[in-house]
Formats: sequence, C-alpha cells, structure tokens
Amino acid sequence: MMVVMTPQATEAEIAAVVEKLEARGVHAKVMPGELTTAIGAIGDPEGVREMGLEGMPGVDQVIPISRPYKLASSELSHYEPTTFEVDGRRVGGGQTFCLIAGPCTVETREQTLAVADAVSKGNASMMRGGAFKPRTSPFAFQGLGLDAFEILKEAREATGLPIVTELTDVANAEALAEVADVIQVGARNMQNYRLLEMVGKLGKPVLLKRGLSSTVDELLQAADYILKEGNDELMLCERGIRTFETATRFTLDLAGVAYLKLHTHLPVIVDPSHAAGDRRLVEPLSRAAAAIGADGIIVEVAEDPEAALCDGPQQLYARDFGRFSQAVAAHAALLDKRLA
Amino acid sequence: MMVVMTPQATEAEIAAVVEKLEARGVHAKVMPGELTTAIGAIGDPEGVREMGLEGMPGVDQVIPISRPYKLASSELSHYEPTTFEVDGRRVGGGQTFCLIAGPCTVETREQTLAVADAVSKGNASMMRGGAFKPRTSPFAFQGLGLDAFEILKEAREATGLPIVTELTDVANAEALAEVADVIQVGARNMQNYRLLEMVGKLGKPVLLKRGLSSTVDELLQAADYILKEGNDELMLCERGIRTFETATRFTLDLAGVAYLKLHTHLPVIVDPSHAAGDRRLVEPLSRAAAAIGADGIIVEVAEDPEAALCDGPQQLYARDFGRFSQAVAAHAALLDKRLA
Amino acid sequence: MMVVMTPQATEAEIAAVVEKLEARGVHAKVMPGELTTAIGAIGDPEGVREMGLEGMPGVDQVIPISRPYKLASSELSHYEPTTFEVDGRRVGGGQTFCLIAGPCTVETREQTLAVADAVSKGNASMMRGGAFKPRTSPFAFQGLGLDAFEILKEAREATGLPIVTELTDVANAEALAEVADVIQVGARNMQNYRLLEMVGKLGKPVLLKRGLSSTVDELLQAADYILKEGNDELMLCERGIRTFETATRFTLDLAGVAYLKLHTHLPVIVDPSHAAGDRRLVEPLSRAAAAIGADGIIVEVAEDPEAALCDGPQQLYARDFGRFSQAVAAHAALLDKRLA
Amino acid sequence: MMVVMTPQATEAEIAAVVEKLEARGVHAKVMPGELTTAIGAIGDPEGVREMGLEGMPGVDQVIPISRPYKLASSELSHYEPTTFEVDGRRVGGGQTFCLIAGPCTVETREQTLAVADAVSKGNASMMRGGAFKPRTSPFAFQGLGLDAFEILKEAREATGLPIVTELTDVANAEALAEVADVIQVGARNMQNYRLLEMVGKLGKPVLLKRGLSSTVDELLQAADYILKEGNDELMLCERGIRTFETATRFTLDLAGVAYLKLHTHLPVIVDPSHAAGDRRLVEPLSRAAAAIGADGIIVEVAEDPEAALCDGPQQLYARDFGRFSQAVAAHAALLDKRLA
Repeated sequence: MMVVMTPQATEAEIAAVVEKLEARGVHAKVMPGELTTAIGAIGDPEGVREMGLEGMPGVDQVIPISRPYKLASSELSHYEPTTFEVDGRRVGGGQTFCLIAGPCTVETREQTLAVADAVSKGNASMMRGGAFKPRTSPFAFQGLGLDAFEILKEAREATGLPIVTELTDVANAEALAEVADVIQVGARNMQNYRLLEMVGKLGKPVLLKRGLSSTVDELLQAADYILKEGNDELMLCERGIRTFETATRFTLDLAGVAYLKLHTHLPVIVDPSHAAGDRRLVEPLSRAAAAIGADGIIVEVAEDPEAALCDGPQQLYARDFGRFSQAVAAHAALLDKRLA
Repeated sequence: MMVVMTPQATEAEIAAVVEKLEARGVHAKVMPGELTTAIGAIGDPEGVREMGLEGMPGVDQVIPISRPYKLASSELSHYEPTTFEVDGRRVGGGQTFCLIAGPCTVETREQTLAVADAVSKGNASMMRGGAFKPRTSPFAFQGLGLDAFEILKEAREATGLPIVTELTDVANAEALAEVADVIQVGARNMQNYRLLEMVGKLGKPVLLKRGLSSTVDELLQAADYILKEGNDELMLCERGIRTFETATRFTLDLAGVAYLKLHTHLPVIVDPSHAAGDRRLVEPLSRAAAAIGADGIIVEVAEDPEAALCDGPQQLYARDFGRFSQAVAAHAALLDKRLA
Repeated sequence: MMVVMTPQATEAEIAAVVEKLEARGVHAKVMPGELTTAIGAIGDPEGVREMGLEGMPGVDQVIPISRPYKLASSELSHYEPTTFEVDGRRVGGGQTFCLIAGPCTVETREQTLAVADAVSKGNASMMRGGAFKPRTSPFAFQGLGLDAFEILKEAREATGLPIVTELTDVANAEALAEVADVIQVGARNMQNYRLLEMVGKLGKPVLLKRGLSSTVDELLQAADYILKEGNDELMLCERGIRTFETATRFTLDLAGVAYLKLHTHLPVIVDPSHAAGDRRLVEPLSRAAAAIGADGIIVEVAEDPEAALCDGPQQLYARDFGRFSQAVAAHAALLDKRLA
Repeated sequence: MMVVMTPQATEAEIAAVVEKLEARGVHAKVMPGELTTAIGAIGDPEGVREMGLEGMPGVDQVIPISRPYKLASSELSHYEPTTFEVDGRRVGGGQTFCLIAGPCTVETREQTLAVADAVSKGNASMMRGGAFKPRTSPFAFQGLGLDAFEILKEAREATGLPIVTELTDVANAEALAEVADVIQVGARNMQNYRLLEMVGKLGKPVLLKRGLSSTVDELLQAADYILKEGNDELMLCERGIRTFETATRFTLDLAGVAYLKLHTHLPVIVDPSHAAGDRRLVEPLSRAAAAIGADGIIVEVAEDPEAALCDGPQQLYARDFGRFSQAVAAHAALLDKRLA
C-alpha cells in the first residue's frame, strides 16, 4: 500500500503513520515529494488495508499497489493456464473452445430432450439447463426445482453431453451435485460467500458468473473463495454488466475477458444470451467471444422460443444451431482451437 | 404492456401478435400510427412479460407500462404509509426520525459496550452491530459470528436500545432472530430470494438494503418477496450505488430516496457511512437524508476507528456522536419529526 | 506517481524504468516488496503521466498519487474559500445561500417577465433563463437565440436580479457577455476546452456545470482551464450524473458536493431540476442541497409548466415559489446561511 | 407516445390529457386497463415529447414508443446500407473492412512519416493522426495544431493513404478540411451541435465518435444533426463507454456495435485503443470487432510508444503492425470482407 499524506501534513502526523505501520510489523518507507509525502507500506497488504489509515490526521489517500486477488492470479500463484476435463471435454489450455448450449430453464421433458438432441447434433460440448431460476419478481416462474433433475439426467443419457446447471441454495447442493457435471454459480450469487465455499468443497467443476455490477478484480476475489477450498476446476463467465446503456439488456464486457486472459490462469467463457436479451445479437457476440480468445461460450437454445416461460427473446432457434456452431467454430479455429 | 411493431411489420405479423395475446386471455388493442403500429395488451402484465413477444417477426419492442412491483406500491396496494414500532420506537409515518448507530462489526465486548453507551447517550433510536460480515476477499476479517450474539444482548440490556443486525445465511436465521430486534438483509443479499422469503416468515421487523447495482424498482420487487410472506414490518435502506464516480466509495442516491417516498408506503432510511467511505462526508450526508424526508439513517460509530478491524475510515467518533445527533435532528425537526 | 512492477519483473526491467525516469529529471525511489517492487517517482507528476511507462516491459501499473487538478484545489493552491459578489449578491464563503431561479428557456416576453416577478418576490438571488438550448434531437426547440437577450435585459431591469444564462458557442461570447451577469457553461460543454478558455477571458463570473459522465476530479480539471486564464469568479454546479438508475433522469451526486466542499475553494451549487426530471422531487432535493452545505441551488420555475416548450415536468410552479424558497432557506439557516 | 395514468387518476384527469393532445392535433386513443389507463398518442411524437405531460395531474409516466432518431434509421428512412468511397477505399456495404491506423498525435515529421510507412506496408486503408488533442488537464500536451497539417499532407503524399484527423473547433474547420480526407468528431464533441452542423456542411466524409456516456440512440440522434445538413458520408465509431469497471480505461460496447448494425444504415467502426488503454488488449478487441461485423477499426500505432507524448501505453508497435493486420483481416474474411 501507499499512504499519501496531504500537502499540509505535519512531521508529527507522518511519524504517527509510520509508527502505526511498524507497530503492525509492516516496514514503512517515507518518500518526501515536492507537494506531498508518500509512505510505502511493505508487507502484509491485506492487514494494512484493514487498518483504517485513511481516517488518520494528515492522510489524504491510501492506495493499494498489489492486486486484491491471490489464488486466481496468473502472476502470483499459478503461471500456467488451468485446464481440466469434464467427461472428456477439455476446458481451458488454449486448444479447445467449449460450446455450452441448451434451454434457459427445464420446462418439460419433451422440450428439454428436443433441445438436447439439437445441440448435440450441432456439436455442443456440454448442455445447460436450469432447475432453479432466480427471478426479480416473486410472481414470475421460478423453475421446476428438483423435478428438473430427472429430465436433465435423461438428456445426458440420450446425448452423452455433460450437464451444466445452477445451484441457488446450499440446501440443494448435494442433490444438485448428483446430476450436475458442472455446477453453475449465477451472477446474483457471485458474492454469496457461503455458496462459494460450498461449491469449493463439492469436488465438481464450477462455472462462476460475474456479478452484474462486479469488477473483474472482484470476480477474481470470488474465485479465490472457491480456490481456497481446494477446488481448481473452475471456469469464469462474463455475462454482461449493468451500465447506463439500455439498448442491450446488459453491456457485455469483452474487454474484461481479454483482461482476464492476461491476469488469471482460469478458463474464461462468455454468456452472450443474457447480455443481449435479443437473439439477433447472440451470434455476432458469440463470434466476437471466439475471436477475442475466450475459452468458450454458454448460449440459450429453444425449439420454440416464443413459447418459452422465460427469456424467450434471447434464445437461439434450435433449427439454426448447427449453422451457428460452425460460424463460431470458424473464428475459434483462427486461434487454433477446436470445439471441445 | 405495449408491443411496438417495426415500420415494416406486415398485417399478418400484427395479426399473429394479437392472436398470441388473445390465446393467453389478454385483450389486445391495435393502434396504427403514422410510422409504426402499437398493440396494447391489457390485463396480466406479468404473464405478458414472460411471453417472449420481443422475438416474434415484426416486433420492435415490448414496453412495460405498469410498474413491476405490487405489494410495496403506495399506488396499487397500500395507500397509507406503513408504520410500526420496535420496542417503543416508531418507524415510518412521518412523525419520527429513526437514528440507528453503532459499530460496523462487533469485535470485542468492551468496544461494543462503549459504543452502545455513547450512542445511547446521544439519543440513538436503535443500535446496529454486525456479527457476520460479508467480505469481498476471503482473507479478510469476517466477524465474530455466533459469539457476537451474547455481546449484543448485553449491549441491549445495558442501554435498552433495540438491536439491528445482519442475517447472511438462512442457517443462522433462528439463532439471529433471538437476539435481533430488527433483521438486516445486506446489499449483496438483496436478490438472495431464499433469504428474503426466510426473513418474511420470521415475524421480526426487517431492514432491507438496496443492492449496489439494483434499481429502486428492483428494491421494491425484493420488498415484494418479503411482503408476500405476510411480514409488513419492513424498512428499505438506500446505501449507495455503483457508478463511474470513485471519489466516494459509492454514489448515494438521495434522489432515489425521494422517488421511493412517492411510490412506496414503506419507511425508507439511508446509510451514509458505506456510501461515503470517509467520515468527513457522513454528517453532511446525514443532514441531507433528514432534509430530503428519509425516515431515518443508519451510521457507524467507533471509539477508536483507527483500531477497528473493518471500515474504520467511515466510522464517526463516539465522542462526537451527541453533537452529530443534534445536527441531524435539527433538519428532521424542520419536517416536523422528532428522533424515534 | 508510483510505478508498480509485475512479480516477474527482472532487475534489468526495474533498472530501465529508473533510468527512464532519471533521464527525465525525476527522482526515482525503488521500494522492493514481498511480491512486487514499486518505484516512486518524485517531482513533475504531469510529465511522468505522459511518459507511457505502463507499456514498458515488467511494468504492471502506474498509479497517480497526486490529485490531477491544481488551481481549483483547496489543498495545493488556495486554502481559503473563494467568495465574490454578483451585483451585491455574495457567492461562496459560507454565510450566504445563492438561490438562482427562472424559466428553463426564454420563450416569450410575457412568460419571462411573469416568472421573473414571481422569483423576485420569492427572494431569489439571481434569475436564470436560457437563450440557446442544446438539444439531443436536431428536431427539437433550440431556444430563441439572440432574440432572448432583450427579454432577459428587460427582466433584469424589472426585478434587479442578476441574469445567469448559458453560452454554447464561442461565436456568441461577446453578445452574451453583454447581457449575462453570470455565464453558464453547460454539462455538455464541460470539456469543450476552447469554450472554457474563452469564458476564462471574458471577465465575468462563471457557473460551470459538471458533465453528466464526468468525475468530480475532472470537473476540477475543467475548472483549472478557466482559472488559469485568471478568472476566479467561478462556481461549480452538480446536476446529476448518468448511471444505470433510470427512475430519476440523472442521479444527483450530493455526496460529490460534500466531497467538493472538502477539496476545492470554489463555491459549489446544485441543480436539482435537471437531475430529477420531476417537479415533485425538486423540493426534497433542494432541501438536501442546503442541508449538505452547498453554496446555492439553481432551479427551473414556470407559470404554466405544461405549456413550456422544454422540460416542463421538472419546473416548479411560480405560485409555489415563495413557500419553496422559505423551506429551503430554513435548512440553509441551520448552517448559519441566509439567502444571498 | 404512451401516456400512462396512475391507478388513482380520475375521469377528469384522463379527459384533460386527451383534450391537451387533441388541441395539439395529435390523435389520442384511451385504453382502460385493469389497474391503470393508458392513452396512446398517435402522430408527431417529437411534439408530444415536448409537451410536458408528465407533470399533469394523474399522469404517472410518458413512454416513447418510437425511436428518437430518424435519418440515421435503417427502419424509417434508408433501408439499404450506406456506402461511400474515400479516395478509392470503400466504407460500409459489407464487402470491405476499413483499417485506419496511425499515431495518436502528430508530434514530429519523422515520427509521423515512419508510422505512415509502417501502416501503409501493413495494408492500412487510411491513416489517422491528431493535430488538435483535447486533454482533460490544461497542463498536458495539446497537439501541434495547424503545424501538424503540413506533416499530414506529406504523409499522404508519401503513402497515398487518405488522412483521418479530428476537428475540435469550428474556427479551424476550413483549414482542416483542406488536409483531411475524413473529418473526425471526437467523443467529447458528440453533442457539440454547432460542430456537428458545421461538419454536415463541409462536404467531406465524417467519422463521428460516440460520447463516453452517450447511449447508442443518442449517437444516432447526433448523426441526425449531420445527416440533416445533407452529408451522408458518415461513419459511426464505438470507442468505449464509462462504467464502474476500471480494469480497462473504458468499457468497449461491442454489443452496441451489433445493435447499431441492426438499426442504422450507416457504417460502424470500432476504436479499441482508447477503450483498452493497454496495447495487449488492442489485438484481441480488434479481432472481436472484425468478428462481430464492424465495418472497420481505428487503432493507434507508434514506432516507440514509450517516447510518445500522449497515450503511449495503448499504441501498437509499428514493427508488429503487419502481423496484427493479417490477424484482424482473417476474422473479417470469415464474414466475406477484404481490407478496404
């Protein structure tokens, strides 16, 4: 950390900061400047952050100079890209592109199996499908709950595709871990720390979505919650952030994906469906995700989106999925990746 | 809802939308305009929202024309302001201003009792104090947990002040309900629907904080989750939203408070401490909250903020609390309110 | 500035940064830490900022440690609050509250004189009124232009109130300076540097509005453009920033006002009308502005807002202005300020 | 427009709105609903928007149902994509990808000619280079001004590349139009309406950058200012918006690009350099821009970015430009586009 004093700070105020740092066992280096004095605090940055130095007399600002995440960092803790397999599909590592597709929510057996068949024929790597659906309004459809699990199992048997499904409540963790090949943590739960620790312990691959107003650094801190439980089969997912722009439902932060690829060893995938809220934008955004170097995408597909109980307008038509898959794969191929 | 067609929409496309609406039992009214045709959908707005009409051929936009919350609305369901008592302190109703104060987090018995004494002498209405502390980093201090409860009980006995404390996990709900007079739901949990339903059932007053990237309409929808369980002893809390401005930690949305006072019957309070992140801003913001017509504030106070394990720089000095309380109360008095 | 190296930076990379800094005449202080090395650059921060060190091998981040504005700073250049008079009305200095009121735009002589009369009777300090109106759509009413000037002069003669009006184009600067007692620079022009330098030279008091997506630090840098021309009769104006929240037209950043009062010597006023977009919010926000310590407000008033060509819904009723003025003044009085 | 009444609106209040609309010559259609009544206003939407109906008794909201831009719309006024040539390079129309590259700012003759040579050899379509540089701080380098023009002319002669350069002040319009093949309007001037009208009249192709907090709909309204002057050789440019995320300098809104391609006939290009602020992100973002269907990109290139007076860290190395160009062109080729 760097403690910057105000231009009017006295010698005594500077000394008090140094003393406080050293009492904590942190080495303090005073750097007098033309206008202000800065004090470098070496060692134990987390502890210094907690010290509340900003409130001390004469202190103007306390500026962190180390990044706030640790285990997720490709610079501090794990230099090689993390890569793992989900039932034979490789995630991360730069040679594969993971195409996850399926309905927003499991509504019926027929709907789910039909979509499963379509995405399987279109070379999807895994199948998504929600059993529990967090909804802004308490009066909206919330998903089939546990009843969806049997349908998802059947879809896996029919297609051989691994299943990605969301955990919304620690109470359902064990039941869901039986059916899920990848456990998704949704955007609204990115800072539900109890849930993060739980999925860190379940021993299953995890897909962690970025919160809609979380910075990428906070996403990496949330990843640290899972990694510290010993689970490093973890992929991150950019799904759009909330900004002043309302033309699209969220603003897909593809630059954030490129930033993540620089600073973390974890695989990073993109969810263009929720960000766009309009199926006509999903293919362009999916191509862009492949071109930017993401490790995969997760998209929503339906046979008859207009009849879907939830998020219909953003779902791709199942009948178009094969062509969609080829178009995206062509951009991934330019980066020497094949579909996982 | 209003379904707006594109300028190129054909008669057949318009007819298809009408048919789809009427099949759902919704009355459709076609309004041809100069450039585009709009179709009004009367009845069952929630159902229409789910229908995915945006994806139909010829549809340009689907625009909601009713507000998305119901039970929290002062226009749809409950015209008089909601008011209730917490151990003799009246919340809401326009005659009282509720001053909630205390440490960010319970750290020790001595620290907690000392602050309790100071805020009690300064005419606080209730005392706040966290047992569980959600932290962005897994390596930061997370609160004393259940051990904090005995200390909070002792503080209540010593001062007579009702206790406001945060529930972060449904697993602790019953234990916390024993010690809490008001159960706080934090900003990160505003859309943790399982938790909302749980606090809706506990039969205790609730303080619901706005999520840091939630709109005020979404806050009212979250309130609906609690209200539909039959608990209407609920106060809302504005605590700052995330914007591009980083001079303050969050941007306190006081205009949102004024908006809420127009559109909901629920009491609305303001947390200036977390938004500011700097104690020098807390008093001006508290005065502004009183002047704008909020029903109260919740602020952090410490004897020695520099020694606090968490959020020190934003905590008021306990020794200043009496003067602070008077300054805020003077602005509330201009709106004919006395401290609760 | 502080240059933070990556954990993998080599000795040679560190030496290259030091050499580059010293070649520029900047003293470099190397601070080896546990994980990363930081290099403090003392002296000439503006020059260092321009050096592009972020792109050098081994450099992770370049972090500014001095604030980017100079002349507007109460810490670097001007410790006492700036105060000045506009035709006998004192602005800034903590003893007066400046109430500027009038129509959004000058539409007719009758409308303007009627409002001038009403705000004068309601103890306004100055009168506002736009001749040029920047509009998002080229097809909307753009103001009377130069024809408005005679009307504004007549209003000043009739009431004795100084006139505040906006300059949108350097081409009109001299004509406008003849009629304006205070020249307003609008939010859209906060970074129109040519215009800033022009108003810095005109020798008239200036009201500079914050850009709708500008940080408060950028507002102070824009102020520096005016101050460096030798004009320090300058007041800043917070008018709402653009955020994800759309319940109000903009998010009024009152915490930013409190922050500005800490860090600049310039008077700071608040425009609640444009932020709110709804007259029912204007009075609560005006009271809050007074309570937070602003040096004044600027509000829109109309006799018949429904007939206004622009921004009707946010304009106060002229018939209510007296009561409004009293309510706001009461909160200012608690901070020992009287209406200017 | 749709006028939505409150649930408590009386018959008289509804009638008053209808009467007001009809007095304006707008046909009003009353739609009684279960909870609220809505009134459709057919015809003259711009006029209705100006009427201030939001402030009338009983009115809850006024909701626009037509999009606010006209001439820039591919749905209202110009169904085929706009395409035009700049000295033989085709812009827009779906068969070419326009690669604009060059230094941020013209600093010296040598620097400019060297970069011109490099980008020409790397198959750039046009060359960029700033003469006037709007800077947040008045103490930063502001560009060579008129002295840059001779250097740019020489670069054009040496390479044959058309020149793209920014106009920041109407006073320089004619001098700049002599050297520029494409006149750039920068993000800070997107709502400088006087400047927009000026470039609409100059008879030269225009590159209009999106304001950093402007919606895409506002960008299209700004385009209307230029188009209404009769100049339709206009390309739009997404360059990143301001959001809460600070890991990248701005948040590049690629979804906004896909949205623009649906709703406007104008060519849309992307500026990844300013959004990223870090050269390592520029190539991934450029590939993504090509993959998403943009009509081109504009990037900054330098021989020795560390020595640049401005924006060094985001500039590509001239020595890498050929490889960069090929990588981007490969993604464009998948959409059947060749470099212009």
